[in-house]
Amino acid sequence: MSKELVFGHKVPDTDAIVAAMALAYLKKQDGYDVEAVALGEPNAETKYVLDYFDTKAPRVISRAKPEVDKVMLVDHNEPQQSVSDIDQLTVTDVVDHHRINGFNTAAPLYYRAAPYGCCSTILTQMFSEEGIKIPKKLAGLMLSAIISDTLLLKSPTTTDFDRDALKALADIAGIDDYEDYGVKMLKAGTDVDSKTDQQ
Amino acid sequence: MSKELVFGHKVPDTDAIVAAMALAYLKKQDGYDVEAVALGEPNAETKYVLDYFDTKAPRVISRAKPEVDKVMLVDHNEPQQSVSDIDQLTVTDVVDHHRINGFNTAAPLYYRAAPYGCCSTILTQMFSEEGIKIPKKLAGLMLSAIISDTLLLKSPTTTDFDRDALKALADIAGIDDYEDYGVKMLKAGTDVDSKTDQQ
Ligand SMILES: [Mn+2]
Ligand SMILES: [Mn+2]
Ligand SMILES: [Mn+2]
Ligand SMILES: [Mn+2]
Repeated sequence: MSKELVFGHKVPDTDAIVAAMALAYLKKQDGYDVEAVALGEPNAETKYVLDYFDTKAPRVISRAKPEVDKVMLVDHNEPQQSVSDIDQLTVTDVVDHHRINGFNTAAPLYYRAAPYGCCSTILTQMFSEEGIKIPKKLAGLMLSAIISDTLLLKSPTTTDFDRDALKALADIAGIDDYEDYGVKMLKAGTDVDSKTDQQ
Repeated sequence: MSKELVFGHKVPDTDAIVAAMALAYLKKQDGYDVEAVALGEPNAETKYVLDYFDTKAPRVISRAKPEVDKVMLVDHNEPQQSVSDIDQLTVTDVVDHHRINGFNTAAPLYYRAAPYGCCSTILTQMFSEEGIKIPKKLAGLMLSAIISDTLLLKSPTTTDFDRDALKALADIAGIDDYEDYGVKMLKAGTDVDSKTDQQ
C-alpha cells in the first residue's frame, strides 16, 4: 500500500489536529503507511494541549499531491476547507462530525460520520470497536479535543457519546479532574487570542 | 423519536431490499421507531430470496413526506436514485457501499460507508460491533444480498470482508452449501429476466 497523508481542516482547531493523529495511529495498527499532518500551525489552545501531553505538532503542508496520491480527511469533508490540491487526490477515508456538503468521490470509500460534538468521540468508538488500546498521551489529546469542541460538554452539540468518551479517555490519560484541566486549556486559547486582538 | 422510513434505491435489487430490513431491525433494537420500505417491487431474484426465507416483501412507497419527516438510506446516496421527494426530507442515517455523489445535508448525520462488495456486509459488521444477534431468517436474506452483489464472491468488487460476512451469515442461517443455494438464487433472477426479454 502506498503512503497516505491524514489531516483535518484549514485553520486547524484542536480536534482537527488530534483526530488526524488518532486516525493515523489506528490505521498504522491496521498496517497502513500513513502520516498525520496539518493544514496550518496549531493555535494557542492546541499548543497548550500538545505541550501538556509532551507531543510534537504535526508537520504543516499546503499541498499533498507532491507527496501522495491518496489522503484521509478528519473533522471536515467540504473541499474548500481541505488541502488546496484536494481535487487532484483520492480520498480513501473520512471521519467527520459535520454535515456533508460538496463532497463527491469517483470511487467507493470509507466514510464514518456521526452527529456528535467532536470527531475524536467517533474515533474513540472506532478504537473500541477494533479492540485497539488508545495510548495514554493520545487519550489526553483526544480528551482535549472533546473539551475544545464541546466547551467542556456545555455546547448544545454535546451528546451522551461525547460524555462517555470523555470519561473513558480521562481514565486512560490519568486526568482525575478533567474540569480543572479543561478550564485551564480553554483559558490558554482565550488568553492568547485576546492578546492578539489587542495587538 | 418520530417514526422514520428506511429504504434502498429505486428499481431495487436484493441488497437494496435486504439492507433496509437489516438496518431497520438494528435501529429497532436501539429503540428507534423505523419501518423498512422499498422504492419498487422485488425483482425475480429477490422474490426467490424472500420466498426461500419465508419473509414478506416490504411495502412499496413512491413518496415519503406524506408519512415522515426523516428517513434512512441504504445501498445508495445519490438523490436521483432515491425517493422522489428526497429534497423535502431529512436524512439521518446512510449505510452504503457506493461512491458519494451529489449527496448534501443541512445537518450532521450518521454516515457509514465502506468500499465493500455489498451493503449487507457493512451491516453484518454493525451488528457485530453493537453486539446484536442477527435473527436466522435475516441472516439468510443478508447472505443472499452478498451473493447477489458479488455474484457468489466472484465480482471484482468482492473483498475479504464480504467473504467473512458471507461465512458468518451462512452459519447463522444454517445454509451448509451456500454455493448451491447461490447458484439457484442467481438462476431464479436470470430465468425470469430472459423470459421477460423474449416476451
Ligand atoms: Mn474542527
Ligand atoms: Mn471537530
Ligand atoms: Mn443495489
Ligand atoms: Mn449493494
